[in-house]
Amino acid sequence: MAAYIREYTMTPNEALQEIRTRLSEEQAEKATTEFLYELALDAHEYHGGKLMTVPLIDEVDDGWLEVWYTPGVSSVSRAIRDDNKKSFSHTSRGRTVAVVSDSTRVLGDGDCTPPGGMGVMEGKAMLMKLLGGFDAIPICLDVDRDADRLVDTVNAIAPSFGAINLEDISQPQCYIALKKLRDSCSIPVWHDDAQGTGCVVLAGLLNSLKVVNKRISDVSIVFFGAGAANSTTARLAIAAGADPGRITMFDEHGSLGPERTDFEGEGWDWHRELCRITNARGLSDIREAAKDADVFIAASKSGPDVVHPMWIKKMADDAIVFACANPVPEIFPSDALNAGAVIVATGRGDYPNQVNNSLGFPGILKGVLLTGATAITDRMAVAAARAIADYAVQGIIGAGRILPSMTDTGLFPHVAAKVAMAAQSEGVATLYPSEDEVYAAALEDMENSRKAWAAVAASDAVKSYPGQRVKDLMEKTVSRYQ
Amino acid sequence: MAAYIREYTMTPNEALQEIRTRLSEEQAEKATTEFLYELALDAHEYHGGKLMTVPLIDEVDDGWLEVWYTPGVSSVSRAIRDDNKKSFSHTSRGRTVAVVSDSTRVLGDGDCTPPGGMGVMEGKAMLMKLLGGFDAIPICLDVDRDADRLVDTVNAIAPSFGAINLEDISQPQCYIALKKLRDSCSIPVWHDDAQGTGCVVLAGLLNSLKVVNKRISDVSIVFFGAGAANSTTARLAIAAGADPGRITMFDEHGSLGPERTDFEGEGWDWHRELCRITNARGLSDIREAAKDADVFIAASKSGPDVVHPMWIKKMADDAIVFACANPVPEIFPSDALNAGAVIVATGRGDYPNQVNNSLGFPGILKGVLLTGATAITDRMAVAAARAIADYAVQGIIGAGRILPSMTDTGLFPHVAAKVAMAAQSEGVATLYPSEDEVYAAALEDMENSRKAWAAVAASDAVKSYPGQRVKDLMEKTVSRYQ
Repeated sequence: MAAYIREYTMTPNEALQEIRTRLSEEQAEKATTEFLYELALDAHEYHGGKLMTVPLIDEVDDGWLEVWYTPGVSSVSRAIRDDNKKSFSHTSRGRTVAVVSDSTRVLGDGDCTPPGGMGVMEGKAMLMKLLGGFDAIPICLDVDRDADRLVDTVNAIAPSFGAINLEDISQPQCYIALKKLRDSCSIPVWHDDAQGTGCVVLAGLLNSLKVVNKRISDVSIVFFGAGAANSTTARLAIAAGADPGRITMFDEHGSLGPERTDFEGEGWDWHRELCRITNARGLSDIREAAKDADVFIAASKSGPDVVHPMWIKKMADDAIVFACANPVPEIFPSDALNAGAVIVATGRGDYPNQVNNSLGFPGILKGVLLTGATAITDRMAVAAARAIADYAVQGIIGAGRILPSMTDTGLFPHVAAKVAMAAQSEGVATLYPSEDEVYAAALEDMENSRKAWAAVAASDAVKSYPGQRVKDLMEKTVSRYQ
Repeated sequence: MAAYIREYTMTPNEALQEIRTRLSEEQAEKATTEFLYELALDAHEYHGGKLMTVPLIDEVDDGWLEVWYTPGVSSVSRAIRDDNKKSFSHTSRGRTVAVVSDSTRVLGDGDCTPPGGMGVMEGKAMLMKLLGGFDAIPICLDVDRDADRLVDTVNAIAPSFGAINLEDISQPQCYIALKKLRDSCSIPVWHDDAQGTGCVVLAGLLNSLKVVNKRISDVSIVFFGAGAANSTTARLAIAAGADPGRITMFDEHGSLGPERTDFEGEGWDWHRELCRITNARGLSDIREAAKDADVFIAASKSGPDVVHPMWIKKMADDAIVFACANPVPEIFPSDALNAGAVIVATGRGDYPNQVNNSLGFPGILKGVLLTGATAITDRMAVAAARAIADYAVQGIIGAGRILPSMTDTGLFPHVAAKVAMAAQSEGVATLYPSEDEVYAAALEDMENSRKAWAAVAASDAVKSYPGQRVKDLMEKTVSRYQ
């Protein structure tokens, strides 16, 4: 009788746990990150990426090929020629988003050459499918940091997609491209590093203010960092009722204000506006600005020790701190709490209150697709932020839980429905389903996406990454420290 | 007890059969086409296109999201930045083809507006997955018939793909774009309307000549039509040993020869060459050229009665006729056979000897991807033609069967292996697997693709198009004729 050999399995979480058990805290901090990097590299090669295509139909024989392909499909081509809207309903276009990057600012790694962003864009596309219930195609562009070429390319490929998600593009190119695409592109363009992050930070801010019982119109907010994320968060916060005069924004050159001359030129329109409308008190020192501030929002560079506890110490009672840099927050949550903050949010999943774009874009883009929207306005992003915040309030919110988590899959159809209604009231929708209809359609599509994935994952068409290799890589990592 | 209602099912083939039973031959000719058009329109809307994405991996929980997405994926970005080849092995790039069209010459319908080609490109992508075992993304471009903009766009999106498949682009833009892309694009570019069709016609020709026991170097060939398909078929036939002097090519302006002045300008290089090297006898009348010709290859416009039986009548003994226009061949096979042809091939699946591009591109592109080829040379296309022809010979070939069919799935890994070896001997490969290794890898990927599709189709994530609607549309079509 042959021996039954059960394959050894170890999950990444189990491996991380074991690393933390076997190494000192300081060693583990480095080793866990190293381990994740090595496992990711090996697992990506093992699978050859993480996204594939599958025919959506259930029959190709018995004459169906003549329906899906030639000659039957000819009727679809002609129908679209006569009525462009049919391209959204009769092909995959209406439920497919292009995830577009020039890979010039990939995660924390900066310029990774044009194909270098593929793994990240595939990850985003994977989340869109699993959480948002729509299809997404990663498209990394070789446009030599030229915003106009990026715009030309996106406009050229637009007929194949229902929306565009821009990602990981350096500034000011990202601002220039977004502005030009909003004018020239016939489908909605979303810049997830700007509107996406802004939306989720705003959701967290709205609930934080509920927890400490302050009003957004009354609070003073310090923004540390003036990149795409923070500058857009400020815009959305103002749209949601924040007082621009009580906002102070700092970057490496100091505070934004009328004396700043480095935001001249293309792409910096909103930064020039921020210089004009914020910082009514004309503060130029971060310590002055933080003093008595209610909210401190950092989206600058990987920490720790980028934001000083002393700044937090001087904030008003019930201070709210967002330290959103990845992979390491600008200040560790424990340090911020020790300095007096009562609510701390970061970008990391292993601390409470993760500010995670994945709470936003899946539902937002789904709502956009289901209404055939031609643009995504700031009001739509604010509606999404309120929907995310309200969804969290359906449970219990508190200093340790201001946002729902990615596993709250009920969130996504809720966001889709609210965004769809906002698209209609903003006048950018071309379809007019009711809120309940959007909710039901989004829920069904999201469930079907996960069912399709589960069916493929359970078939032997997809290889399982061997648990033994997880364990081997963990041992290899630990051994380097022992 | 509730009644058990079994849903009525009718396949498209059953519906076509019933139409032919209930209507006269002439009526049925029109009605079957109408029925396919209406069914295609309804079924495409029902499913919302026919292609979707699915995550390829089998786990996202237990820490896997930190491997597939941030922070783990960062190691993939950096690895690609340091070594571009890793973009092919560590992301979906290495197994994904862009199916690119500007929709200016979609099937028989001409310019269908940019998104108008989506249904056709999705169909092609579906076949690539099911037959070729690789992923494909339909990309319809809005480039205003400008070959340079098409080239710029394809070069910009190239970092996301392993190869480019051009499709349904009007001439001369298709020639100009192909030539420029071959010079400028770092990944291989295939023009399926040219090399793809040429390859499959050549495969059929090689076997036809075996059946009638003639040598390609000895036969005289008349080409009727001088578009992308026929002009490239001629080039591949010459590469396979045909004598250019014995080739005569006709278009609506007469024969190609030194007196032709309409092929000046960009993109027509090969047509000028054809004018120089073909038609050694200087014939200008199609009837003269057809007289005693061994082979007549038409790829012109939808028939019937575009090629006259009288031309066929005067051909040499054992005449071979290819009438490849779609949806209706230039001459019906029965008329060509009555006029004396012994072998007739068409583009249609309902006659013997279908010349079907789907016999070629799935295996060819698979072989290209598995060798990381940087180009697809004519010799590679000829190798593919020989592989297709040889595969048919493994069965029984004869006047009624010169080519394998799409259901001979054993063909595709065989073609992939032969093309991979040709890529290596042509010096365009970057990977060097053995023929057996390519065959095994291609076979496994093709089987896994069909398994993944079967798993999704069997899950309730994909709706079945109701058989009752097939029947209703059939009845509606028939009723219009009764």
